[in-house]
Amino acid sequence: MSGQKGAVLLVGAGDAIGAAVARRFAEGGYKVCVARRDPEKSKALVDELTAKGLFLRAFSVDARKEEEVQKLFSEVENNVGPIEVCLFNAGANVNKPLLETTEKLFFRAWELACYAGFLVGREAGKYMVRHGRGTMLFTGATASIRGGVGFAAFSSAKFGLRAVAQAMARELGPKNVHVVHLILDAAVNSDAIHQRMKTATGIDVSEIPPDSLTDMASIAEAYWFAHHQSKDGWTFELDLRPSVEKW
Amino acid sequence: MSGQKGAVLLVGAGDAIGAAVARRFAEGGYKVCVARRDPEKSKALVDELTAKGLFLRAFSVDARKEEEVQKLFSEVENNVGPIEVCLFNAGANVNKPLLETTEKLFFRAWELACYAGFLVGREAGKYMVRHGRGTMLFTGATASIRGGVGFAAFSSAKFGLRAVAQAMARELGPKNVHVVHLILDAAVNSDAIHQRMKTATGIDVSEIPPDSLTDMASIAEAYWFAHHQSKDGWTFELDLRPSVEKW
Amino acid sequence: MSGQKGAVLLVGAGDAIGAAVARRFAEGGYKVCVARRDPEKSKALVDELTAKGLFLRAFSVDARKEEEVQKLFSEVENNVGPIEVCLFNAGANVNKPLLETTEKLFFRAWELACYAGFLVGREAGKYMVRHGRGTMLFTGATASIRGGVGFAAFSSAKFGLRAVAQAMARELGPKNVHVVHLILDAAVNSDAIHQRMKTATGIDVSEIPPDSLTDMASIAEAYWFAHHQSKDGWTFELDLRPSVEKW
Amino acid sequence: MSGQKGAVLLVGAGDAIGAAVARRFAEGGYKVCVARRDPEKSKALVDELTAKGLFLRAFSVDARKEEEVQKLFSEVENNVGPIEVCLFNAGANVNKPLLETTEKLFFRAWELACYAGFLVGREAGKYMVRHGRGTMLFTGATASIRGGVGFAAFSSAKFGLRAVAQAMARELGPKNVHVVHLILDAAVNSDAIHQRMKTATGIDVSEIPPDSLTDMASIAEAYWFAHHQSKDGWTFELDLRPSVEKW
Repeated sequence: MSGQKGAVLLVGAGDAIGAAVARRFAEGGYKVCVARRDPEKSKALVDELTAKGLFLRAFSVDARKEEEVQKLFSEVENNVGPIEVCLFNAGANVNKPLLETTEKLFFRAWELACYAGFLVGREAGKYMVRHGRGTMLFTGATASIRGGVGFAAFSSAKFGLRAVAQAMARELGPKNVHVVHLILDAAVNSDAIHQRMKTATGIDVSEIPPDSLTDMASIAEAYWFAHHQSKDGWTFELDLRPSVEKW
Repeated sequence: MSGQKGAVLLVGAGDAIGAAVARRFAEGGYKVCVARRDPEKSKALVDELTAKGLFLRAFSVDARKEEEVQKLFSEVENNVGPIEVCLFNAGANVNKPLLETTEKLFFRAWELACYAGFLVGREAGKYMVRHGRGTMLFTGATASIRGGVGFAAFSSAKFGLRAVAQAMARELGPKNVHVVHLILDAAVNSDAIHQRMKTATGIDVSEIPPDSLTDMASIAEAYWFAHHQSKDGWTFELDLRPSVEKW
Repeated sequence: MSGQKGAVLLVGAGDAIGAAVARRFAEGGYKVCVARRDPEKSKALVDELTAKGLFLRAFSVDARKEEEVQKLFSEVENNVGPIEVCLFNAGANVNKPLLETTEKLFFRAWELACYAGFLVGREAGKYMVRHGRGTMLFTGATASIRGGVGFAAFSSAKFGLRAVAQAMARELGPKNVHVVHLILDAAVNSDAIHQRMKTATGIDVSEIPPDSLTDMASIAEAYWFAHHQSKDGWTFELDLRPSVEKW
Repeated sequence: MSGQKGAVLLVGAGDAIGAAVARRFAEGGYKVCVARRDPEKSKALVDELTAKGLFLRAFSVDARKEEEVQKLFSEVENNVGPIEVCLFNAGANVNKPLLETTEKLFFRAWELACYAGFLVGREAGKYMVRHGRGTMLFTGATASIRGGVGFAAFSSAKFGLRAVAQAMARELGPKNVHVVHLILDAAVNSDAIHQRMKTATGIDVSEIPPDSLTDMASIAEAYWFAHHQSKDGWTFELDLRPSVEKW
């Protein structure tokens, strides 16, 4: 991974994992591009990192639309630089008994967590094979390896994404594209999760044990590590959970 | 599984596995309904089994359409009898490098092998929970557990189907619905496969070792066994391959 | 599996699974040999089956001793007939926190559940390869695929046994030896379990939901099915659990 | 992982992985202790690191003997400092058809790769629980998750070690002991491997593609990363293989 640092493109980059990965790679000297449906929502992050003299640019994309994904990659390649790292991080956790899962819910869970991941992974793969190098990061979850009660839709999408990542790793590894699938077996320590927890269970984050949610920075660190592995020893899959997690 | 035998509904019932399962359950005294896009193609099977005094009826369905699936189940329930067994067997093996996989191919592989499986499984689940019993059978493949080179689209769909099956098994088992996922780690001994092999490799089926393709009847037998397991000991997943297979 | 029925040798055949498998295969026309450390304990079973005109003979073996295992196989082959089926069923579930697991406990768990399985599997393999056919059955458990809290010793042994079964299946399948590994994800419905439950939790078997323990006959039926699979479609691994089990 | 750096104890520390891990942690400021049967063999490493002003001490241990393992830990704790990191790296790859695997070979493979790992892991666990922190590293292999042809003995031992690691991770994680299992799906780039390759296949290391063997330093880097993960996001298992590896 020597020489001039390239662009890092984060797709499905919300305020939690995406922002943390953006910080880590921007601080590490990369030109970071974050893409989400409404780029206005990334304004605070852009301001924060720009104020530190770091490179961060926000893009708009609906990652479920092929032409938008292609346009995004093309813009980043042309205006920012060759994409060296790409993270696909989209996907909304849904929990619904199978018999109450509408076809619309099932489709949407797949479209966002799996189909968009395929579109992004394939596009990243095209550029990275051309460049002769690159790292593609996929965020997985417990639901990527376990179809639990209430998770027919979400786990179906996450299983499907994992298959894309595996096939991509096997196909593009020999072309020097490193594919990584991180299985996050934890809730993330973010405002959104705190609120969801409060709503769903009435429990305030101050009441749960420290370190029982995974910090976004820990995830970013794992991606940073994986990207910097030497090509004689690449990790495809690693899990991540708090020390106190039951599993 | 005592008492009057109910209906068996086979969806995605082509001339290979579907026909074999139809024969097995019809000979076992069940009223078998086979559903595929063009029911005319099942005419020979209907004639064969009807001539033996067995019950077989062909239905038309595009299993990727919710309303068609719902109509199919409703018709079978109303005109044939309570559905006791349902097999989802659709899905076309596709092999394409990731970078050449069009979004259309990826979508179609998923729509047929995974989305249709969700629609069928959910519909079967509704009726079976209502009846207080039933068996749902899903046909999986090596690609259900391995995202190999060239299998981004197909394995993504099959991984996704397996997640649906797992979630359904965990949710509906306690409601006396037995869900089975069979991992077929083999090519099937059918005319279609013989022809594909001839086209792809120039090898005639007479040249390969005996028993190196899995007979459709062996698959049907595994499903028959699983359906007749006592509820104190149900199998969720089993693999199936020829003795000579490398794996 | 045509022709004269051979011998079935059950090693580690206690009063639960072993006895059920003995009944199933004896009733199916096989000459069944049960081997355990104290063959006197099989007297009731011998009497029961002999009274029905079935073939059952009890042998003594310490399956952890190579010479005893070799002698057992040799005796059965010479005095009863060619061994067509062999079940390895030994192994005592132990639950102990890692830090309290003595080296003796760890060794004994392995010696009984894994090492003895290797000795029996290898010996069965030798005869079956010579005969050109045979089925080797291994009884696994949840601990075969999950190293849970308190299961360092037992799961280490069961993981190890599963590896032996996998290697044996891959090596001897092409020589027409069918190897099966059954993952029993349940407590067995036996007097011993009832007593252990009573002692450990104070709960009487009459108080738990029906069908929440797996009947030994259901396990025997699964083995019977696997042995009779056609060689074009063999199952290596299948799980088994009550419908109401949480997993 | 703040404060004064503790001791790092590497057991089964040969000239390849063990030496690389020793270098990485010694350079990172840890007091490193390497233990193997013949500590004389670590003399060159001791000299190399000591010359750089780093801390490295060689110990003698037969890790298959409980009393020797206990004495080793006690010596390191008393004379070097509290053990913060422990690596278990022993185990000799053996490849032998099942039917030719002697009971002695099977026992020895297990004793070295699994039983010794249990003894070392349990001892490390005792001290780390007492200290309220620590990291236990286990080196796994492809054979840890696949019982391939010729690997009955070795994979049985490595499966067994993985079970120990899983149970230990689940039991001791909540006590702030981080357990890591690294699945090395590659041959290591060491003189020993070069020679074995030459002997077995006649191929000289200069003839194989660059980066097709995994560098020991890459493994050491993965362990370094895992040890420094924050406790809100720990990795239990990660794989490692060259980019060009077929898997």
